[in-house]
Amino acid sequence: MNKKELISQIKKKRSFLCIGLDTDIKKIPAHLLDADDPIFEFNKQIIDATKQYCVAYKPNIAFYESLGVKGWESLQKTLSYIPKDIFTIADAKRGDIGNTSDMYARAFFETMNFDSVTVAPYMGSDSVVPFLQFKDKWAIVLALTSNKGGLDFQTIKDADGQHLFEQVLETSKQWGTAENMMYVVGATRAQQLAEIRVIIPDHFLLVPGVGAQGGNLQDVAKYGMNTDCGLLVNSSRGIIYASNQLNFAEMAANEAMKLQLQMDVLLSENNL
Amino acid sequence: MNKKELISQIKKKRSFLCIGLDTDIKKIPAHLLDADDPIFEFNKQIIDATKQYCVAYKPNIAFYESLGVKGWESLQKTLSYIPKDIFTIADAKRGDIGNTSDMYARAFFETMNFDSVTVAPYMGSDSVVPFLQFKDKWAIVLALTSNKGGLDFQTIKDADGQHLFEQVLETSKQWGTAENMMYVVGATRAQQLAEIRVIIPDHFLLVPGVGAQGGNLQDVAKYGMNTDCGLLVNSSRGIIYASNQLNFAEMAANEAMKLQLQMDVLLSENNL
Repeated sequence: MNKKELISQIKKKRSFLCIGLDTDIKKIPAHLLDADDPIFEFNKQIIDATKQYCVAYKPNIAFYESLGVKGWESLQKTLSYIPKDIFTIADAKRGDIGNTSDMYARAFFETMNFDSVTVAPYMGSDSVVPFLQFKDKWAIVLALTSNKGGLDFQTIKDADGQHLFEQVLETSKQWGTAENMMYVVGATRAQQLAEIRVIIPDHFLLVPGVGAQGGNLQDVAKYGMNTDCGLLVNSSRGIIYASNQLNFAEMAANEAMKLQLQMDVLLSENNL
Repeated sequence: MNKKELISQIKKKRSFLCIGLDTDIKKIPAHLLDADDPIFEFNKQIIDATKQYCVAYKPNIAFYESLGVKGWESLQKTLSYIPKDIFTIADAKRGDIGNTSDMYARAFFETMNFDSVTVAPYMGSDSVVPFLQFKDKWAIVLALTSNKGGLDFQTIKDADGQHLFEQVLETSKQWGTAENMMYVVGATRAQQLAEIRVIIPDHFLLVPGVGAQGGNLQDVAKYGMNTDCGLLVNSSRGIIYASNQLNFAEMAANEAMKLQLQMDVLLSENNL
């Protein structure tokens, strides 16, 4: 999916919601465990119930990988089931030397057919650039993450007072364009979105951490929204595990709708 | 495998060689392509031919992942085929927020049965610590990598003149011990091994980049070896793609043996 199509979906659905499919066999409703493929069955019902409220789905690859071959089958089926007008993110945090990153890019863009992959920047240019060689596909580079450990290295200052995450933004934005790169910026660091927007005014930001991790949607929009919206705000556990009863999908839809309604207001306030 | 057992294998085999199984369907000998599982067949013959010369195998996970479900099956079979007295490394460069890193740890340590996983440090403590919770299993954290992009961020200096990779070493060594953590340090940066040994005298180092990437084994031993050896030196392409003819396994064994003979000398010179 290209940038224009993504923006068009956001305007049409009045939403910039991304739903994280962190599907854990230990957390899904008990009545699904008898299904042939409980993970896929859960995702299918979540997708059916929530697809009108979101513009992106983000399977967290670790949750599938931990189940081995069977997990990868569930992931493939889930990806095929997601409607084609919804943006897909393989939340995989990959990144390795050039020829190896190229293999990861093929894994997610060709063997599977994801629109985007999250990528870790520690190994530098040749670990990210291979993800930028595919038409209408995206690398989503980690900049400032919402977890506690995000402060261990990302906010180290160099001799000029620039944080590591700012250097990651400054340097990596030269490897691609706002048409094939996005950045991960945690919602728990919303104020820093303003500084980040000075460096990358045009790029889309993938913002995890609204809900379970404590971030605030209004702050994210205030500091991070640009004239294209420029935001995909993710919620995972707050939506998909809203209930573990028979009505789990309905409850998930409810939570997704609540966020979509807030997003509609925020889009309108920004003339979008 | 614990540290004592690894050191004992190094002394017994007179080798600290790790062989990288970067098995690419496009590079393996044509006569293998008719096999049921050409990737596994290639690995099996490489393992049979080289196991006496090495103490570790390192499948590069991207190469398997790029083949989807079938690739994961080849990986599982390969792992099961590796003799139990050889250390296994999932070269996966994983790392995510705590609950997700925990899933990756389970994927590689429980669903599969690797001894170790390579881990990217950008997301900090909670992205690494979940890999340290398994008995006799290891996290191998990226410090200073051998690729061109390794210089983009890893060598940035802070206000005190300390490089990022040094801060990664200083900070992360407090999360575990030399019994459950190793570090990746590229062979093309051999002189820096001396500085690194000041910070982490006791940890094992996984050193890629000897051979195809231009690093020098003698320099690595000179600057990086400690009283336990403390080194696993990896070669991938230089060994497994020594030939693409019928005798590929024999030629691979030849290359592995050459390195092992050099390692024997280096171990003796260091009274090991």
